[in-house]
Amino acid sequence: MKRFVMFSSVVMASMLSLNAADLVEEAKAVGLRPLPKDQQGIEAVLKENGIEVSKFTNEKAELGKKLYFEPRLSKSGLISCNTCHNLGMGGADGISAAVGHRWTANPHHLNSPTVYNSVLNTTQFWDGRAGSLADQAKGPIEAEPEMATPAKLAVSKINSLPEYVNEFKKIYGRSGVTFDNIADAIATFERTLITPSRFDKFLEGDEKALSKDEQAGLKLFIDKGCIACHNGVNLGGSMQAFEIAGKYKFATLGDFKGDANGMVKTPTLRNIAETAPYFHNGAVWSLTEAIQEMGSIQLGINISNKEAKSIETFLQALTGEKPVITYPQLPIATDKTPKPEL
Amino acid sequence: MKRFVMFSSVVMASMLSLNAADLVEEAKAVGLRPLPKDQQGIEAVLKENGIEVSKFTNEKAELGKKLYFEPRLSKSGLISCNTCHNLGMGGADGISAAVGHRWTANPHHLNSPTVYNSVLNTTQFWDGRAGSLADQAKGPIEAEPEMATPAKLAVSKINSLPEYVNEFKKIYGRSGVTFDNIADAIATFERTLITPSRFDKFLEGDEKALSKDEQAGLKLFIDKGCIACHNGVNLGGSMQAFEIAGKYKFATLGDFKGDANGMVKTPTLRNIAETAPYFHNGAVWSLTEAIQEMGSIQLGINISNKEAKSIETFLQALTGEKPVITYPQLPIATDKTPKPEL
Repeated sequence: MKRFVMFSSVVMASMLSLNAADLVEEAKAVGLRPLPKDQQGIEAVLKENGIEVSKFTNEKAELGKKLYFEPRLSKSGLISCNTCHNLGMGGADGISAAVGHRWTANPHHLNSPTVYNSVLNTTQFWDGRAGSLADQAKGPIEAEPEMATPAKLAVSKINSLPEYVNEFKKIYGRSGVTFDNIADAIATFERTLITPSRFDKFLEGDEKALSKDEQAGLKLFIDKGCIACHNGVNLGGSMQAFEIAGKYKFATLGDFKGDANGMVKTPTLRNIAETAPYFHNGAVWSLTEAIQEMGSIQLGINISNKEAKSIETFLQALTGEKPVITYPQLPIATDKTPKPEL
Repeated sequence: MKRFVMFSSVVMASMLSLNAADLVEEAKAVGLRPLPKDQQGIEAVLKENGIEVSKFTNEKAELGKKLYFEPRLSKSGLISCNTCHNLGMGGADGISAAVGHRWTANPHHLNSPTVYNSVLNTTQFWDGRAGSLADQAKGPIEAEPEMATPAKLAVSKINSLPEYVNEFKKIYGRSGVTFDNIADAIATFERTLITPSRFDKFLEGDEKALSKDEQAGLKLFIDKGCIACHNGVNLGGSMQAFEIAGKYKFATLGDFKGDANGMVKTPTLRNIAETAPYFHNGAVWSLTEAIQEMGSIQLGINISNKEAKSIETFLQALTGEKPVITYPQLPIATDKTPKPEL
């Protein structure tokens, strides 16, 4: 117990009373939930969230994977979904604000959120303007500072690649290659991007899945009130009030102030250790600092260095196992394929 | 035989006398060779080419794969080897001239060559200034219009990621993370990027591996003299004279005129159907047109549309099977990791 002497009294109190079984119950009681185990489970969560999705099939997910890695969906032929939502880097890009077509920075200085587990968010985009991933996927393809491809061009590019045309026909029947179907296939692939962690095992009753330090961090995470916004299966992913108790330290970086009602999509904390920098404007690189900043501007409380470190220890346990992804071979271009526009 | 009536007299003459076994012998006699089957075979080819490489191990190739997909090797954190040498797109980028850091176009308007089978080239870069892939790999990392990362910065980035540091120590011993070792690991991964095709099976004696039309194309490829430059195991990849008989149709696109002796690295024709646009300046998108242009400026001959189509039919058979690549999970950044510079 010697090491806990260093901890603040709040942590000590938590630790002394800590019982893993009780903590599991408490975590569930405040709304934390393990990841679903399969597509049926995912669909159940989506139903709760009121989000409609098309039928999942492996063929559709495979097609969606190709499109996810398909740079020809961008006007230049250089940028794919994976450029900003890199599946090898926690599903994000590791830079403050997204950079897209012709090296254009995101005009609102918005950070690319992780794609992992994003299907379980109740809403998409920082201002929550899309419900489903299929709606979301269209945004970056068309957005001028991102992939800059008007829907019509995207469809004509995919339609020029016979291998895609055949697959769309097989999967979507007569409707074939449409912008909606392109987005639907990508979103279907994204439904496979689930990353179970030790925290999930803990919630499922494996009391040893989290170390005592991680359990202490979880307890503090609950007690401090982080759970107010970072709740549910994704520890985030729903709309919450923006800057409740104060202004962001770097509030001037970008012009985002939440949606029309002053709400923001709370990021998921799953894989958070892999997805620095933090916040909507990617202004903060240290997870400890991000935790303290959130305490200050969202909860109006002071979180000490030691408390923040303890919470961070818990958050590290949210780094999940990534699905194994075979890099796709993309269809060969034809003389009908629209040329890259750089 | 009805379909051959359409062919020119040259093709017809070839076809009439065509015997698969003889053609295999002829192809070998003029210097065409199948791909090596394993690392030992690759090393034998490298030895012939006078290129020294380090010992191959799977661990080194796995580390090299991570580095190949590692965008943090670029100054911006956005560009990896795979950006311009996309393993899902024939190992190239599908654009005329490379675009890199801050969307800078290649100053000489040079096209990104395929990385597949590139280990078997006798020389690297369009002007052949590197012999081994390990020498080559350093170029794009440091080049300002590509990844724009000075060697020292590259080393300090990789050194800031503990998972890499451990792997380098295990593989390279005391020398650990150095720019040379980074390049060596990438080059080692690239030694796995071999793509056996039906043409290789044909050369190995499977006479049915190529259709009669493809065999006719191969015969024409030899008879027309394409073989003069596109020879050896890679049907190219060695230094040859630039613009022997005339000027490139789009000679003004870029300022490349070969090396100091007017020589150019002939591209490999393996997977050529996947790697449009063609030539050092990526000026031509149609393979038929590229074949005719080469006849005109390198051989000083006229290749008819039908002859070009026949040769193209053969070249299509050079599209090889790609190795299955699991997309790598990259190490998590630390607070010591140098920040992206955009």
